[in-house]
Amino acid sequence: MKTRSGCPVNQTIELIGDRWTMVILRDIMFGNRRTFRELLGNSLEGIASNILSARLKMLLSEGLLTRKPDPGHKQKSIYSLTEKSIELVPLMVQLGAWGRRHLSPTHELSVRAELLENGGNEMWERFQDDLRHIHLGHPRKTPGMTVLELLDNAYRKAAGITGQETGQSAD
Amino acid sequence: MKTRSGCPVNQTIELIGDRWTMVILRDIMFGNRRTFRELLGNSLEGIASNILSARLKMLLSEGLLTRKPDPGHKQKSIYSLTEKSIELVPLMVQLGAWGRRHLSPTHELSVRAELLENGGNEMWERFQDDLRHIHLGHPRKTPGMTVLELLDNAYRKAAGITGQETGQSAD
Repeated sequence: MKTRSGCPVNQTIELIGDRWTMVILRDIMFGNRRTFRELLGNSLEGIASNILSARLKMLLSEGLLTRKPDPGHKQKSIYSLTEKSIELVPLMVQLGAWGRRHLSPTHELSVRAELLENGGNEMWERFQDDLRHIHLGHPRKTPGMTVLELLDNAYRKAAGITGQETGQSAD
Repeated sequence: MKTRSGCPVNQTIELIGDRWTMVILRDIMFGNRRTFRELLGNSLEGIASNILSARLKMLLSEGLLTRKPDPGHKQKSIYSLTEKSIELVPLMVQLGAWGRRHLSPTHELSVRAELLENGGNEMWERFQDDLRHIHLGHPRKTPGMTVLELLDNAYRKAAGITGQETGQSAD
């Protein structure tokens, strides 16, 4: 990649500082949306299919996602996070923390950001371990409820979702 | 602002998730560039004047900057950060931390990001207090060298700048 400058802040912005990339990664990270169809159909922000397609292609080529065929549907692909994108968790937390404090998000879409922000470094590390388990197949380090389940339960409670619906696919 | 969704991550991205906004704020924050001319002329990334102008206008209207006349040059303006933009420091740190680890920044432009990252929350708080002193006129809470001076010295050493040149205007 030819970059505008050698500044690490600038290089991060050049790669992922557009209006959609972090939104797509958010949906994979927190909503566990792993296929094009899930990412398109459940998009809260109404992403257009050509934009989603272009961003997924960029994320694959830059090593922020990998793709493998869905065992059940050979023509479908399942996307997974990589170590490189899992390490965006602290940045994602700060995007949520600042938005929660200075903009006008809804309560139900803010409870996960609040929990993560208050959980601090220790919770972000555990969340990254959950993602390494789900996306990279690493063994879990900590037994019991995952941070993803904790966040998901808090979201479902705030959104008034009960029963079998999963917050992961409904956020 | 009409937002795409009530998610705090999305709302932050909608406001400042473009290719230039955080780069301009970085230059004001770390380089203490306070006028249009300084921001344009010293831009490492070569920002175009129409883009700089549009972004400054947006930052003023969204309460991320304020503007007052330069006492020495009545036709010039001096831009200052606000509490809202000073609280972007943790996000700025994470942009630098991730870029440093996963992209290809130069050493001299990475030393400040590294220091801030390693300094953790406590240093980010002190840095925000420095910025409140410089931009909002708040009294300093901690005596001695400021975090900005510490970062600036580290940058000048890495860049081989000596004597009277300031890293603040030369980064």
